[in-house]
Amino acid sequence: MGKVVFNITVSLDGFVTGPNDGPENGLGDGGDRLFKWYFSGNTEIPISDGRMVLKVSPQSAELLKESMGTFGADVWGRRTFDIARAWDGHPPRTPCFVVTHTIPQEWAKAGSPFTFVTDGIESAIRQAKKAAGDKDVVVCTASLLQQCLKAGLLDEIYIDVVPVLLGNGVRLFEDLGTTPIELESIRAIGAPSVTHLGFRVIKEQQKQKLP
Amino acid sequence: MGKVVFNITVSLDGFVTGPNDGPENGLGDGGDRLFKWYFSGNTEIPISDGRMVLKVSPQSAELLKESMGTFGADVWGRRTFDIARAWDGHPPRTPCFVVTHTIPQEWAKAGSPFTFVTDGIESAIRQAKKAAGDKDVVVCTASLLQQCLKAGLLDEIYIDVVPVLLGNGVRLFEDLGTTPIELESIRAIGAPSVTHLGFRVIKEQQKQKLP
Repeated sequence: MGKVVFNITVSLDGFVTGPNDGPENGLGDGGDRLFKWYFSGNTEIPISDGRMVLKVSPQSAELLKESMGTFGADVWGRRTFDIARAWDGHPPRTPCFVVTHTIPQEWAKAGSPFTFVTDGIESAIRQAKKAAGDKDVVVCTASLLQQCLKAGLLDEIYIDVVPVLLGNGVRLFEDLGTTPIELESIRAIGAPSVTHLGFRVIKEQQKQKLP
Repeated sequence: MGKVVFNITVSLDGFVTGPNDGPENGLGDGGDRLFKWYFSGNTEIPISDGRMVLKVSPQSAELLKESMGTFGADVWGRRTFDIARAWDGHPPRTPCFVVTHTIPQEWAKAGSPFTFVTDGIESAIRQAKKAAGDKDVVVCTASLLQQCLKAGLLDEIYIDVVPVLLGNGVRLFEDLGTTPIELESIRAIGAPSVTHLGFRVIKEQQKQKLP
């Protein structure tokens, strides 16, 4: 059974989009600064079946290649789906489960890489785990991080911190509540334009298993 | 002339205190989790003239020793002063300039390590630079980071990120506005219980020097 991991790129001040994000404005005002690291190195990484080529540092390339081999299913929030749908060339890498209240009928057809899940994050993770088999489930929407952490669903968190201050936008960490959540640092790799951090979520499994 | 640097310990979710911080509650609820890294290693670092001994990892010890040799003056906000004053054993390392609206008369006496500055951050930095000589001025209050960045006063930012989620409290990055601020990553050093990040602030000096 694979792990459930969260992976996202975030500004140093904690935003995953700039202000005014949405289908018409992708990552928000200035949000493209988040992904300069995808094109600021010399090592080429083809993605989306070769339709796009990232150019990153050797350090980042090594991590990207490693993680691409372990991803078995994606879990997105509806906003990520809407933004990605509006952005050509960003199909999901793997079977993709979209947590949503309403199903966009034009995408809910046979052969679609998307499965729309209307009964919550736990159901989405369960279905994604089945689809991923031995590989990992990757969650990559900020609001789902909050839901996953509260529900104890995550094994690891990978955050790519870019040296950019966006000032406003969608915060990665919001409404977590103050029930202590402990993490263990498992990775800190600095590349010139991004720092790759990794954390293991320390679950209180004993507590959960008590009657 | 030394640099003006900012240095603080922050939770992964961006808080420098837990909720309900104040003179009576130090770093807020659960805020002591921020500084577990001070006592989670085996390398001893005496501070406060030996009245306190940190026990950190070898990686952290090297950085702490290096920075302690370069600090020439501190700049604090009033809240930091109030919390530190309530917390015995935390005298300033160096001459300390406190940005405040009102002067606490009991501390404004000859021989006090504190100078109270009522005419704003630029004045505090100017006075601190004079006191520091060739050494660095260290700012370590979240609200002053915002003021310093907006005023273009900072050269470098050092953030010690701990693998802890506090959920609420005083945010490090708040009210920055959305004028783009560019940084350059200069350090990413992972230790077991803290990740030391460093950034150079890219100043638009040409722009500032134009008439």
